[in-house]
Amino acid sequence: MSDPTQPLDGDPAARVLVAGASGFAGALAARLVWTHPRLELVAATARAEAGTRLDRLYPRHRVPLTLTELEPSAEEGWDAAIVAYPHGASAPVVAALRERGVKVVDLSADFRLRDLDTYRSWYGEPGAPDLLPEAVYGLPELYRDRIAEAGLVANPGCYPTAAVLALAPLAAAGLIEDVVIDAKSGVSGAGRGGGDRLSFVTVDENFTPYGTDGHRHEPEIAQELAALGGPAELTFVPHLLPLDQGELVSCYVRPSREVAEDELGELYRERFADEPFVELAEEAPGVRDVRDTNVCRIHVIERGGRVIAFAAIDNLWKGAAGQAIQNLNVMLGLPEAEGLS
Amino acid sequence: MSDPTQPLDGDPAARVLVAGASGFAGALAARLVWTHPRLELVAATARAEAGTRLDRLYPRHRVPLTLTELEPSAEEGWDAAIVAYPHGASAPVVAALRERGVKVVDLSADFRLRDLDTYRSWYGEPGAPDLLPEAVYGLPELYRDRIAEAGLVANPGCYPTAAVLALAPLAAAGLIEDVVIDAKSGVSGAGRGGGDRLSFVTVDENFTPYGTDGHRHEPEIAQELAALGGPAELTFVPHLLPLDQGELVSCYVRPSREVAEDELGELYRERFADEPFVELAEEAPGVRDVRDTNVCRIHVIERGGRVIAFAAIDNLWKGAAGQAIQNLNVMLGLPEAEGLS
Amino acid sequence: MSDPTQPLDGDPAARVLVAGASGFAGALAARLVWTHPRLELVAATARAEAGTRLDRLYPRHRVPLTLTELEPSAEEGWDAAIVAYPHGASAPVVAALRERGVKVVDLSADFRLRDLDTYRSWYGEPGAPDLLPEAVYGLPELYRDRIAEAGLVANPGCYPTAAVLALAPLAAAGLIEDVVIDAKSGVSGAGRGGGDRLSFVTVDENFTPYGTDGHRHEPEIAQELAALGGPAELTFVPHLLPLDQGELVSCYVRPSREVAEDELGELYRERFADEPFVELAEEAPGVRDVRDTNVCRIHVIERGGRVIAFAAIDNLWKGAAGQAIQNLNVMLGLPEAEGLS
Amino acid sequence: MSDPTQPLDGDPAARVLVAGASGFAGALAARLVWTHPRLELVAATARAEAGTRLDRLYPRHRVPLTLTELEPSAEEGWDAAIVAYPHGASAPVVAALRERGVKVVDLSADFRLRDLDTYRSWYGEPGAPDLLPEAVYGLPELYRDRIAEAGLVANPGCYPTAAVLALAPLAAAGLIEDVVIDAKSGVSGAGRGGGDRLSFVTVDENFTPYGTDGHRHEPEIAQELAALGGPAELTFVPHLLPLDQGELVSCYVRPSREVAEDELGELYRERFADEPFVELAEEAPGVRDVRDTNVCRIHVIERGGRVIAFAAIDNLWKGAAGQAIQNLNVMLGLPEAEGLS
Repeated sequence: MSDPTQPLDGDPAARVLVAGASGFAGALAARLVWTHPRLELVAATARAEAGTRLDRLYPRHRVPLTLTELEPSAEEGWDAAIVAYPHGASAPVVAALRERGVKVVDLSADFRLRDLDTYRSWYGEPGAPDLLPEAVYGLPELYRDRIAEAGLVANPGCYPTAAVLALAPLAAAGLIEDVVIDAKSGVSGAGRGGGDRLSFVTVDENFTPYGTDGHRHEPEIAQELAALGGPAELTFVPHLLPLDQGELVSCYVRPSREVAEDELGELYRERFADEPFVELAEEAPGVRDVRDTNVCRIHVIERGGRVIAFAAIDNLWKGAAGQAIQNLNVMLGLPEAEGLS
Repeated sequence: MSDPTQPLDGDPAARVLVAGASGFAGALAARLVWTHPRLELVAATARAEAGTRLDRLYPRHRVPLTLTELEPSAEEGWDAAIVAYPHGASAPVVAALRERGVKVVDLSADFRLRDLDTYRSWYGEPGAPDLLPEAVYGLPELYRDRIAEAGLVANPGCYPTAAVLALAPLAAAGLIEDVVIDAKSGVSGAGRGGGDRLSFVTVDENFTPYGTDGHRHEPEIAQELAALGGPAELTFVPHLLPLDQGELVSCYVRPSREVAEDELGELYRERFADEPFVELAEEAPGVRDVRDTNVCRIHVIERGGRVIAFAAIDNLWKGAAGQAIQNLNVMLGLPEAEGLS
Repeated sequence: MSDPTQPLDGDPAARVLVAGASGFAGALAARLVWTHPRLELVAATARAEAGTRLDRLYPRHRVPLTLTELEPSAEEGWDAAIVAYPHGASAPVVAALRERGVKVVDLSADFRLRDLDTYRSWYGEPGAPDLLPEAVYGLPELYRDRIAEAGLVANPGCYPTAAVLALAPLAAAGLIEDVVIDAKSGVSGAGRGGGDRLSFVTVDENFTPYGTDGHRHEPEIAQELAALGGPAELTFVPHLLPLDQGELVSCYVRPSREVAEDELGELYRERFADEPFVELAEEAPGVRDVRDTNVCRIHVIERGGRVIAFAAIDNLWKGAAGQAIQNLNVMLGLPEAEGLS
Repeated sequence: MSDPTQPLDGDPAARVLVAGASGFAGALAARLVWTHPRLELVAATARAEAGTRLDRLYPRHRVPLTLTELEPSAEEGWDAAIVAYPHGASAPVVAALRERGVKVVDLSADFRLRDLDTYRSWYGEPGAPDLLPEAVYGLPELYRDRIAEAGLVANPGCYPTAAVLALAPLAAAGLIEDVVIDAKSGVSGAGRGGGDRLSFVTVDENFTPYGTDGHRHEPEIAQELAALGGPAELTFVPHLLPLDQGELVSCYVRPSREVAEDELGELYRERFADEPFVELAEEAPGVRDVRDTNVCRIHVIERGGRVIAFAAIDNLWKGAAGQAIQNLNVMLGLPEAEGLS
């Protein structure tokens, strides 16, 4: 039950469950619901840490709720849920919640890929294939109208969020012949429980490519670029940055025809003119510029016949929990930026 | 068996085993033996990672040996061993090695405390109490002659190394009425396997006191200060620094009588004049000044009647593996700094 | 002139100038005024960067104002000002603003020390000694009522904020016989323009004591402890942490009489029960717990007859700009936490 | 004059001057000469810091020499010199040294570009164009024989070192149709004197592309790839990493024909079989793997028709001072790795 001191403006627009609130993204989602003027956080659940106060686990988020165990079959009066479970573990929970009519934003990959064979080749057998047709890919800048109608939104991966936003105007204009996406993320993107691989001593003063034999975010980026009209083929290599929150993608496009920097500027300004969370920068963005914000900051240039698009996001905000709130706002008919600035 | 390419100057002075070479201190010890011109690294063992090449686990150390399992009862022709096992796990291994006449430097706490009751109250029942009388505390600046004769040397903890060196001249002169030791260490001091507590995301951009209800290095510091003539009572609080290797202690002494800065300088210069690994600095030391070295860098001042001594070490070198090599050099009659510069 | 898009709830309670908005604290102050629901940011000025947009200099603060040059003699319709000038440069600007009746929170040291001789011995000749009597030391937890009446508030230094809050209950109870304050701050506390001394390469993976021959925050701490009834004598040593924002003080008190941990808890809870920005933690605080917040997080223990109080703040928030807003709220009769959560 | 305690094995092979020893690369060069068993450091000079002891400026290097002012016209008995001056400032000093027959390794860009027009378009008018024909590009893995005969060696830039080594086998085999080089460097690569742009607060927890409108290392990489038979056209974008020493290049090659991973492995092993400072890794390298070493660690893969080569170096070692020593060893007929391991 929610602590009586949650600051709300009048009646809540929805009573919200955050499942998996002990992970980085789930905990931030819980905090964003907690401080959201129109959402009521009715429960924050966790599989391992049930019984612990969330503000003991994450003092900085200051959410004074005790984590509980999730019983999705119980009638709890939830209107909406943000599910931050690992891939595979999410599908059954989402299915149970959907059965009771709860609107769900799912942070796992379980409902992101529309092609079942592609899903299987990267993740194995899907847990709730029947729900795939109703799931909407939760990038509001691409699917705002469908998200507004959706009962289940598959929140995008952090790399796809940055890469697809960086490339959307080019893809939609059919301008991408070929693209290399060199991506770099802070450590929080990998979640908790990384052991020695993500220990301070391993990561500090280090910088390493990883997933070089194929990363699960690649088919997701390919799917969305293809949907826009762009190429289904691409090269994507992520690297691990020695910082906490922040992600930058550098996208090197061989364009299908010559394109001047002016035209690029026009293309991007037009596409993103009314987007509350996309910023077009006059200089290459740094990840600090967007830290602790839901902003995707983009800069695009032409150099020797190649087009280069940079995008920076905070992987926990626009790349996960912030975008989940943005999606929830759209689903509930609230102002899209409510609780996010 | 040692790889044939180990660079040695003529016949080795000793054939050395490093047990527990998969941890931070053990791995560095293996590297220091490997590059030591007079020591032959005949085996590097590990409990969990046996079968893995050490240069796969720690590319930067470039030791091309495969980790094996330790069988201390086997006759392997070891002359000496550095044991880098956790507290408690070390004693039986050390005992088995000592039975075969192997000279041992032990990096655990198992033989550091000379008083059994003190040991018990911090660590529980000792594993090899019979060996305690022969163990020499491995701070060469205090016990060089006894180390030269010893079969078993208990390598000091990192905090005691820095704190005792910082305070030794004052303690020996009976000048310490009361002392507060505010200590700060990089993360490698806590070893591997720390899980989320030592993950990058937890430690990065953070700084926290820990062990505030009593830290195991406190009785060790008290023991050595008392042995020098100083106080057995002290206040010691460690803090975790967001960096990899490096440790600084700030020691605030209420002196038993007024003492001028000149006298302090004299006292310290005299005590450490011939020490190869103690530097007296004209300014407060930074931990970067001693990174990847076996040096303890000290600065002492007087301020408003209080004496403040700062000491910086690299916790993995002078605070662990480097000091182990220094001890081994002394035990084997080699030049004390051999293989350490 | 303020950009029309500043988000305000109805009429502003005050039209506010931020002078010196190109420094770290000034820029944050400008942002906090900009996002404050009841304050209107009418001008952000800077000496060197006039003409530059503030969101170009600090993209993350997203204040779309162009920095201007300050003309304090001009009639600009300012009701209040936050002045973030260097020590010495501040006094004349503050004097000019006060002459026109502008309420001022000054972030420099120019009006913090009530004793002129003490001021002179640390800073030289004061620039506006006539204003000293009317200046109130801006620690609301100590001087809330006087701040509410004040025209000029001297915002405390970051170290004094943390140290005085950590020690206030003890000082007021006459319990401090003697105190050592070992303080550690992130780099932003030193401001811009530090050159190679504060370059990334110098600070990264480093940790260093500084100001060991006396730091300007020491007389400020002494003044406030004495005002509470505590000792005027203390030992204060700051250290530089390899992180951006965050500060921790570890205060080692020799109490004037024996005091149990229960009594301590009671003392602190009583003192800070109604404070919106003081948190009493069950564990030693980390600086991450308070990052980007105006919170001072305190933990106090007893150990072997000594009392140890830890306090963590964000040096730019509670240690500078956040506290300036808190003071401004009090001066203007607004809710004290308005615009700060 | 050299300090008498410099550790040397018998007579020095050369008496060496390091000019510009107050910068990061120059200071490391001085240390490497100082600890080199066959080189005598006869002088370390600096323009601004003359009179300061080098171990005061850089305690960690422990070179107990006082920096002097350079008088290149004086007869000082130097056999060789490492010049670590800024671009433009280097040429006249090098010319004066060459006139006296001193062998020079120059760390600036003044003699790296063989085409004068290319030089002019990036750097302006060359300072000593007459010397260009005799200058040899100091990448021993490409020009070992010519370096052995050279009087003047132009030490490569850090990015070109990593990129050219990563791509050399492909370029020499005519396999590069098109290449994107996404490069990331630690902050020390930018040298001292960066002001607020390279301050800790700016760089920490940040990651930013820079030089996106063209970086001076691009023509250098193009020149060397072309010399090998590769493309003169390429896309190169550097990014700034929040770490001190370390550099990684990720090179995305569209090959001129299909090429299997086996063939790649063969190609690279053959090319680098006997190279003392090139390591072929089984996994993508991290910059920590090469920190404080002269090693270039390379990993190459094939992915969906694209070839990706990663190379990691320490920008101050293999990317600057370490490579300078390697070159000097070759020029003097010493073992190439002497003083570098």
